[in-house]
This record gives sequence, structure tokens and C-alpha cells, in this order.
Amino acid sequence: MKHFDDLSETKLSEKLLYDGAVLHVGVDDVRLPNGKDAKREYIRHVGAVCILPLRSDGCVLIERQFRYPVNSVICEIPAGKLDSKSEDRLSAAKRELAEETGIIASKWTNMGDFYPAAAYTDEKLTIYLAEDLKTERQNLDDDEFLNLEWVPFKTLFDDVMAGRIPDAKTQLSVLKLAVLRPDLCK
Amino acid sequence: MKHFDDLSETKLSEKLLYDGAVLHVGVDDVRLPNGKDAKREYIRHVGAVCILPLRSDGCVLIERQFRYPVNSVICEIPAGKLDSKSEDRLSAAKRELAEETGIIASKWTNMGDFYPAAAYTDEKLTIYLAEDLKTERQNLDDDEFLNLEWVPFKTLFDDVMAGRIPDAKTQLSVLKLAVLRPDLCK
Repeated sequence: MKHFDDLSETKLSEKLLYDGAVLHVGVDDVRLPNGKDAKREYIRHVGAVCILPLRSDGCVLIERQFRYPVNSVICEIPAGKLDSKSEDRLSAAKRELAEETGIIASKWTNMGDFYPAAAYTDEKLTIYLAEDLKTERQNLDDDEFLNLEWVPFKTLFDDVMAGRIPDAKTQLSVLKLAVLRPDLCK
Repeated sequence: MKHFDDLSETKLSEKLLYDGAVLHVGVDDVRLPNGKDAKREYIRHVGAVCILPLRSDGCVLIERQFRYPVNSVICEIPAGKLDSKSEDRLSAAKRELAEETGIIASKWTNMGDFYPAAAYTDEKLTIYLAEDLKTERQNLDDDEFLNLEWVPFKTLFDDVMAGRIPDAKTQLSVLKLAVLRPDLCK
């Protein structure tokens, strides 16, 4: 079995190939560990947060929204992009939760980060558990369309395990909370 | 709280904006539920599989490889893209596992699908558990660099929960198997 002492690639030059409203595509020249050169295409992403809002009765808030790339309405926990690379992630989570759902939470727990697709994007998401909730006014943009629903955590967990929740961040957040709070799965 | 009877968006026209070696960026005009028009940018992806190879002693095989977009060597389970949209996913999983690791498995279990980033790509991954393993010859491309390592499943599970495994597909596969096989976490 092969073994490499150094796996890293070195950037030789970078280029922004497509600078869209949402997607920003870069292509860089790199030096490979074997000394050869190659190109690396990737999506530059500002980073994002997702939030699992847990009510004291064990229900969590999910959103149903149409996702154009997969051409279907899917069930997801609330999430959103940072305003900038330097925005504090917890502040972004509070802002996104308030805007999309009208919920203010007074207890926040960081449940960890993940790269959804490290092969082609630098996007990093942080998962937050939000508790001690009170509901204020939802503040959707005119062109934002989503429906909210409270679901027992146990139902959502069963749905994840049965393959009825295709969204990665929702699967991950639910499975992590199931480990941390096995009482919610009973 | 707002409620929408129809959340779907209708495609009006499509355009391939950037057709790279790896990334394919589309931008479509769509009609929103409120009758207004908007643009949707997205990455077209052929689809992928990932494989959790579980040895009879409870160890799983992980890969360490450099991921250029996140500028670090990360720990991942074996994975790869389909050769085409129509390729059978199980066949792709067998091919990728054999090429990257030299492992042939005689027992395969589908552990479900996920969309890593449904907001901007149609990529869908299927997770397979591979068991009853035998090792043959690894067949890496000249420009493919990765190191393989057998790790006790319990160690990997603890690493996921402690935030030491940033890769989404690896987190998801490990957490799902932990639910299905709690004996492996002891």
C-alpha cells in the first residue's frame, strides 16, 4: 500500500473564473506532491450556520422549502450564510433564526462544524442547538418562500434513519443531538 | 406565521455558464411562487458514493488526503463520483473502493442518501457499509495522493463527536452506523 510523507499541494497562482450573485468559482494552478502541476477548481463560499431549535416539549422546528438544484421541496433545519467571512458565527445563527422563523433563543450550544463538500468548496457550516425559545415576528424577504412546522424530535430522528430527510445538515444535526440527548429518542 | 400552498419554482430557461474539468455551473431563469422571475445559479454534479469499510475486528478504513479548497489534510472515508448519471451506485461504490484501497467486499448495505448542499448543487451521495473484506492491489492514479489507515470504529465515533472529523460524509456515515450498531461504540 502506498504511503506519502507529504500530501499537500502548493498554490502557484489563483484566478476568479466566475463571480456570480451566489456562486464564485475559482481555478488555481497548484504543485502536486510529485512535483507535477495541476489545476484545482472550487467554489469560494463565505461560510454558513444551521440551527436546531428545540422546544421544551421536545419538538424541533423545521422548514420546508423548494431547492431548485434538486427540484423538490425538502425538509431542513433553519440555516443561512454569514454576512462576511469575519462575521461571528453565533451572531449569524441568532440573526438567521430570527429572520426566518421569528424565534429568539436564550440558550445556545455549539454542536460542531463540518465541510459539506471539501472536494470542491471551502464552505464550512457550524451547527447550533437553540433552546429556551420565545416567538416574535418572522421577517422573510418578499422573494423567500418557506413553511415552518414543529415536529417531535423522535419523529425527525426516525425520518432521518428511514431516509426521508435528504438534507445533510439536517441529518447531521439530528444524529448528533440523538447521541447527546438519547432521552429525546424515546 | 406565513404559509405558502405552493413553494415550487418553475424553470423558464437554462444556461451552462462554466463547463470546467470538475465543476459545471448552470444559471437558470425561474418563475417564483409569487409570479416574479429570478435567477438560480447551481453546480451540476453527476452524483457520488461513499463507503464505510468495516473489518470483522471493528476497525474501519479511513483515508487522509489534502483537500485544496479547505487547504488541509482531512480524514475521510473512501468516496468517488459516478462515471455517469446512469451508473449503478453500488457498482460505482465497488469500483471506487477497489481502486482507492484495493479492498473487495462481499457484503454491502445501503445506509441512505444525502444532498451535501441542496441550496447550490444537485449532488447526491449514497452511503454504503462494506463488510466481509479482503485486500487486493490498490490502483491509484499517478496524480492521486492519499494515505490509508485502519482505525477502531469507537475511536472514529469519538473523533466525530469531539469535532476532529470535519468531513460531512464521514460524520454522517459514522453517526448512522453508531445508531445501527451500538455494540461498535462500546
